[in-house]
Amino acid sequence: MKVNGRHYRSVWVEEAKDGQKHLFIIDQTSLPHAFRTLELKTVKDVCLAISEMQVRGAGLIGVTAAYGVWIAARTAPAGRFEPFLRESLSSLRATRPTACNLFHALERQEKTLVGKPREDAIRAALAGAESLAEEDVEACRRIGAFGLDIIREIAARKQGKPVEILTHCNAGWLAFVDYGSALSPVYAAFDAGLPVHVWVDETRPRNQGARLTAWELGCHGVPFDIIADNAGGHIMQHGMVDMVITGADRVTRLGDAANKTGTYLKALAAADNGVPFYVALPSSTLDPALRNGVREIPIEERSPREVRYVSGLSAHGSEEVLICPETAPARNWAFDVTPARLITALITDRGVCEASEAGITGLFPEFARTV
Amino acid sequence: MKVNGRHYRSVWVEEAKDGQKHLFIIDQTSLPHAFRTLELKTVKDVCLAISEMQVRGAGLIGVTAAYGVWIAARTAPAGRFEPFLRESLSSLRATRPTACNLFHALERQEKTLVGKPREDAIRAALAGAESLAEEDVEACRRIGAFGLDIIREIAARKQGKPVEILTHCNAGWLAFVDYGSALSPVYAAFDAGLPVHVWVDETRPRNQGARLTAWELGCHGVPFDIIADNAGGHIMQHGMVDMVITGADRVTRLGDAANKTGTYLKALAAADNGVPFYVALPSSTLDPALRNGVREIPIEERSPREVRYVSGLSAHGSEEVLICPETAPARNWAFDVTPARLITALITDRGVCEASEAGITGLFPEFARTV
Repeated sequence: MKVNGRHYRSVWVEEAKDGQKHLFIIDQTSLPHAFRTLELKTVKDVCLAISEMQVRGAGLIGVTAAYGVWIAARTAPAGRFEPFLRESLSSLRATRPTACNLFHALERQEKTLVGKPREDAIRAALAGAESLAEEDVEACRRIGAFGLDIIREIAARKQGKPVEILTHCNAGWLAFVDYGSALSPVYAAFDAGLPVHVWVDETRPRNQGARLTAWELGCHGVPFDIIADNAGGHIMQHGMVDMVITGADRVTRLGDAANKTGTYLKALAAADNGVPFYVALPSSTLDPALRNGVREIPIEERSPREVRYVSGLSAHGSEEVLICPETAPARNWAFDVTPARLITALITDRGVCEASEAGITGLFPEFARTV
Repeated sequence: MKVNGRHYRSVWVEEAKDGQKHLFIIDQTSLPHAFRTLELKTVKDVCLAISEMQVRGAGLIGVTAAYGVWIAARTAPAGRFEPFLRESLSSLRATRPTACNLFHALERQEKTLVGKPREDAIRAALAGAESLAEEDVEACRRIGAFGLDIIREIAARKQGKPVEILTHCNAGWLAFVDYGSALSPVYAAFDAGLPVHVWVDETRPRNQGARLTAWELGCHGVPFDIIADNAGGHIMQHGMVDMVITGADRVTRLGDAANKTGTYLKALAAADNGVPFYVALPSSTLDPALRNGVREIPIEERSPREVRYVSGLSAHGSEEVLICPETAPARNWAFDVTPARLITALITDRGVCEASEAGITGLFPEFARTV
């Protein structure tokens, strides 16, 4: 997508003047108040970028980790190639627990590299990461096309009034390599000239909605309003939402979807008010090994600091403010699970399906065999 | 309740050295980082204190407005007593639309003052406000006693493990004159030696949970953790909540309850997970003239600034930080309505009842006659 007229992806490799290839990301922790790109030089850089959420979002985490394997192969100390690669894979795997794209990407890279001599492994790791990135872009583009059909149908009923879409967190191009999952249909609809308006949940505690989704939509010219996460129920009760679309970090074979904390509350409100609730995801987010999402998907608990402090722009520049008493304790679960029964349909890169084993294996017959 | 060893109410009249009576409040906008009391000298001071939320919470708004009528009577310009009183009543009435305690209090004061000569009116206005304050304190104390029975029952099942109570916003003593509504049973249980732990929803956009409830509970020594509003669904899915108690700003004769935005989402999650959901309120919060809360209770929309900026303590002192792009628009509905069907029971100053017309008129037969 474009930033100040230049096309960017959220992660990319660039050949510098030294003739060497370098890995870059957009530092998402400095958005929206500053747009900074950052070079990741070491495996430690990549791990920190993921765990500290300079990159975040299911798709982008996976692809960045895949590039991390390339960095690992390139930077392995002489004579310690294989052990270093193994250690790096395990550090990358430990960065975040919930989104399964991370594990898929690392597993694929590991298989590619197995038994290859160093120079071949470096080339294969880069090629593997690049192809994961391209697949991510193409999957998100396709999600946009399938989701567009749904928005078009609603638009036809609204007789020129904007289709009101609520989204939670950021599942835009910043969460993937390009386009995004939940926002891809929104961009597709906007680009097709359909009137759309997005309710952007601010998405505490890290405010990815207020910071990233608002920034993305603003860059692209899509009309939106930020609301407190708490306000979504009220606007659904008053007929101000035509559909909800969120992304996902992991979807089980029965269709239960882990996504940013608070998604489940919006799904409940949507169900209570007859608002269709869609979860958009590329196939890399499916985890056919799991069934009951609430019981089986590991939910990351992050630092209470993210709840206790809010960062933003003050008169003194970028700052954090403490929003509670200095000694007040907090807890911080980063995701929740929306049971399949609350999901109207999944919008995937292979089409739209019911959030159920039958729906998923209908589109993804390769998962029918996995237990 | 006690602050630094001294007993405070949230609003009070004090005789100063000049022999005159003065009206004081705790400035709740500076909590938790500073404890400041503030004198309200004019009707304008009182109106601003309410609309800018230096005082907030259904009960406290009502009582403060009642004291505002006393201030109006005292400060009316010579020869304009009655018109000034009328104008003041109408300014006080316009400060906030949702909590009906405000309108009840003003109506009662107006009736008391009608036709009285100035000096009598001043005395009657003060006496009226004082008796509203005493009734508020007594109602909240009784809510605590009735709610304690419910907590005691749960405690008996938990065999020494803490009763896990989730609350939204601040319905503690800061929201009333003393004790509070939702927190009154919690204080009663804690004081009775029952093990309790409170999940404090931070309550965006104004963070009354993180700022005020956390401060209150901390002052009293009640164990708690702050969570993002988004996290409540997850902890209910995982059996970490035994009961939800919230306050209310207005409850209709059918039992629908308006409360701080986001309450409805917690009620949905509670219902979905079999967690009992209680709404605690004094009778002054009942509005027997309304039936369908979602359709009939006016919901205040406040400034988008409250969503776009977060205030707290930075290295530079009290500050606001902008959490979204500079030009990003926001909307800010301050309340939502929880339908009676999602409420396990109402905890009132006359006892616990079903959230229904039968339940309410059973405890409040005087409302049976109102249409």
